[in-house]
Amino acid sequence: MKKIKKRDQEYIKQNNLKMILDIIKDKRPISRAEIVKIANMSPTSVSRIVGSLMDLGLVKETETYSNGVGRKAILLDLDLESVITIGVYINKHIINVGVVNFGGEILYKDKIDLNPKDIYPDILIKKACGLINDVIKNSKIDSSKVIGIGVSLPGIINSKNGEVIFSAPLNWKNIHIAQAIESELNIRTIVDNDVKLKALAESLYGVGKNSGKTALVNFGKGVGSALIINGEIFRGVTNIAGEIGHITIDPNGILCECGRRGCLQTFIVEDNLIEEANKVKKIVDIEEIFEEARMGEDWAVSILERAVTYMCVTINNIVCMYNPDTIVVSGSLVEAYPEILKEVEEKCKTFIWAPLRGTFKILYSELKSQSDIIGPSTLASNTFLSFDI
Amino acid sequence: MKKIKKRDQEYIKQNNLKMILDIIKDKRPISRAEIVKIANMSPTSVSRIVGSLMDLGLVKETETYSNGVGRKAILLDLDLESVITIGVYINKHIINVGVVNFGGEILYKDKIDLNPKDIYPDILIKKACGLINDVIKNSKIDSSKVIGIGVSLPGIINSKNGEVIFSAPLNWKNIHIAQAIESELNIRTIVDNDVKLKALAESLYGVGKNSGKTALVNFGKGVGSALIINGEIFRGVTNIAGEIGHITIDPNGILCECGRRGCLQTFIVEDNLIEEANKVKKIVDIEEIFEEARMGEDWAVSILERAVTYMCVTINNIVCMYNPDTIVVSGSLVEAYPEILKEVEEKCKTFIWAPLRGTFKILYSELKSQSDIIGPSTLASNTFLSFDI
Repeated sequence: MKKIKKRDQEYIKQNNLKMILDIIKDKRPISRAEIVKIANMSPTSVSRIVGSLMDLGLVKETETYSNGVGRKAILLDLDLESVITIGVYINKHIINVGVVNFGGEILYKDKIDLNPKDIYPDILIKKACGLINDVIKNSKIDSSKVIGIGVSLPGIINSKNGEVIFSAPLNWKNIHIAQAIESELNIRTIVDNDVKLKALAESLYGVGKNSGKTALVNFGKGVGSALIINGEIFRGVTNIAGEIGHITIDPNGILCECGRRGCLQTFIVEDNLIEEANKVKKIVDIEEIFEEARMGEDWAVSILERAVTYMCVTINNIVCMYNPDTIVVSGSLVEAYPEILKEVEEKCKTFIWAPLRGTFKILYSELKSQSDIIGPSTLASNTFLSFDI
Repeated sequence: MKKIKKRDQEYIKQNNLKMILDIIKDKRPISRAEIVKIANMSPTSVSRIVGSLMDLGLVKETETYSNGVGRKAILLDLDLESVITIGVYINKHIINVGVVNFGGEILYKDKIDLNPKDIYPDILIKKACGLINDVIKNSKIDSSKVIGIGVSLPGIINSKNGEVIFSAPLNWKNIHIAQAIESELNIRTIVDNDVKLKALAESLYGVGKNSGKTALVNFGKGVGSALIINGEIFRGVTNIAGEIGHITIDPNGILCECGRRGCLQTFIVEDNLIEEANKVKKIVDIEEIFEEARMGEDWAVSILERAVTYMCVTINNIVCMYNPDTIVVSGSLVEAYPEILKEVEEKCKTFIWAPLRGTFKILYSELKSQSDIIGPSTLASNTFLSFDI
C-alpha cells in the first residue's frame, strides 16, 4: 500500500508554516521579499504565514541597514529563545547532555563518565535523568520553554515507539528508553540512532548546510552511514537504512561482532586494527599504530594503508547506492588522525567509480562531537514543535 | 540549498488531482466512499476532485452490484483508453516497442533484433523510430491519444535532458536520444535507466503493488538495483543511485568492465562465470554450466555456489542501505534458472544481517520482460499527463 498524505486545508496550512519557518531557519536573517522568491509564493501568502509564525512567537522582526543607500530594512529572524530542546548523547563511556536553542546553538552542556557497571539500562537511564535535571537547572533557562528531549545512541532504534531494539556497545535489547525518561521527567522524549542524528545536525547546521542530499559516514568503534534528503532522515521501513558497516565484503572474512563474516567494518574498526598490530608488536592503543607508521614501520604502514583503502571502499559504496551531492566524513578515527583523511581524499580521486567522480564533495565534520547533542535536540525540535494557534 | 516545493493553490489542486488519481489507479474499481477513507479528505472535496478527473476524461463511473443486497453501487475506474503511451526498450540485441494503456496494459507490441552494426546511435534511433511508427499504426489505436514515449536502456542517463551519458553495452556516450526521437516523431519523449524503470513497473503493476518501499535487483549482463519509494524513483543527484554492481567488494579483485577492480558484479555476471568455466572446459553458454552442475561436476557446482553467495551478498547489501519492505529479484540469470532462486532464498535466511531478517520479503519479478515496456511507458504517462482543465 502506497502511503497517502492527507492534503486538506489543515495539512496545507501546517505545511506552509513549516516551509516558511524552514526557509527562515536556513537563511536567517531574511526579508519577506526574499522568502517570496525562495518559496515561489505570493507576497500576501508569505506575509500571512509570517504573521502566524510571529503570533506563535517563533519568528521576530529585526531591523538592519541595507547596503549602500542606508535605508532601514526589516528582516525576519528566529526568536532563538522561543524553543528550547535538550540533546542527550549516550555511549558506553559517557552521557553528554546539552541545552539547545531554536537556532541549534548549545547554550549549556555537561557530561558524566560511565563505568562498565553503569551501562545497565536502569542505572544509565537514572543517571541520564539526573544529569538532564542538573543541566536544565544550571543552564538557568526558563524550563517552561523546553518542548522536548532528544536522545542519541548507537544501535538499532525504533524511533516511533522510543525503543532501543538492540545496541551492541551498550549490550541493550528492547529497552523503552524514551518512555522511561518521559515518565521520570515529564518531558516528551524521542530517541534515534547516533549516526542518523549526526547526519541531521551536519545537514542542517554543519558542512551540509548547502546540500540537498547529504550522506554522512562515521568511522569509529563501528562504521555507519546515514542519508539526509532535504532535511529529512532517510530511514527505510524499520529505521535501519544506512548500516553500511554490515554490508558484506568478504563472505569468508574475519568474524564481525554481529556474528557474520567479512562485514565492511571488520576492515576498518579500531579494535580490529589493534588486534592485527598485536601479531607483530604488543600495543593497546591505535595511536601507537600511527606512531609506528610515522616512524616508517612497514607493518604499521600496511595496516593503515588497508584501512584507508576500505575507507575509500566505504565512500565509493555509499555514493553508488545514494548518489548524494555531499559526503560528510566523521568519527573518532578520522578526527584523531587528520593525516588519514588526506590519504582517503587522494585515493578517492581514482578509486571512485568514474560516473560518480565529480558528482559529490567530500567534506569533514564541522560540528564534530557537538553534533552528538545538536542532532538529537534538532530531532526533538522537529518532532515536538507544534503549530497550533 | 534544500529543495523548496511551491505549495500554492495551483500546486495543491494539481497535487490533489494526482493523489486521487493514484488511489483510483491503485484500487480500481473503487467507490467515492472508499477514496474518502484512504485520502482522509472530506466527501465534498473528493467528489469535486473526482468530478475534475471525469471532466478530464481520465476517470469514469462503472455500475456494479454490491455483495448481498443487490443494490447497485457506482464505482470509479480509469478510462483505460484515455491515455496511451509508448514504451521502448533498447539493449544491444533488441528494440522492443509496445503500446500501453492507462492501466499499464500492453495493447500491442513488436520488436527488431539488432546486429552489432545496428547499435551506432544514428542507425539505432532511426530503427527505433521506424518501429514506433509501425507499432502505432498496426495497433490501430487512436494516435491522437498518445501523450508520450518512454525509452528504457542500460546505462547512466540524464533523464531531465534526455541524454544517455554513458551506456557500456551500447558503447554510447552523450547521446541525446529523447530529443532525437522527439524531433523525428513529434511526440514528447523521456528516457531513463532500464533497472530503475523495471523497478517502477514492478512497484506499480507487479509484485511490489502492495509495497511502499520496493527495491529491485537485476542479475543479468550486469548487476543493478533501484529503489521506488511510494511510486517515485529514488534517483540521487545525478540519477545514479542504486548502481550496486559497482560497489567495491575486493579492491584487489579481477578487473570489471568499468576499469576498476573487484566490483560486485564481477562475481556474478554471466560473462565472468563463463570465463571461469573455460579454465576447466570449453563452453560458450551459461546453460552449459548449469547442465554440468546438474550432472554433479564439482567445478560447475563451485562456480554456481559462489554466484549464489554473491547474489546473497547483493541482497544483504541492498537491504542494509535501503531497508525496503520488499526486494524484487529479476534478470536473465534468475529467470532462466529458477533453481538458483531457491538456493539464494535458502541461503539468505542465515546470510542476512540479523536486525534485517524478517523486515522484507523476497519476491520474484511477475512482469518479467513485460516490465521493460511497462516501465518506460509508465514514466511517460507520469511525466507527460497534464491536469490542465
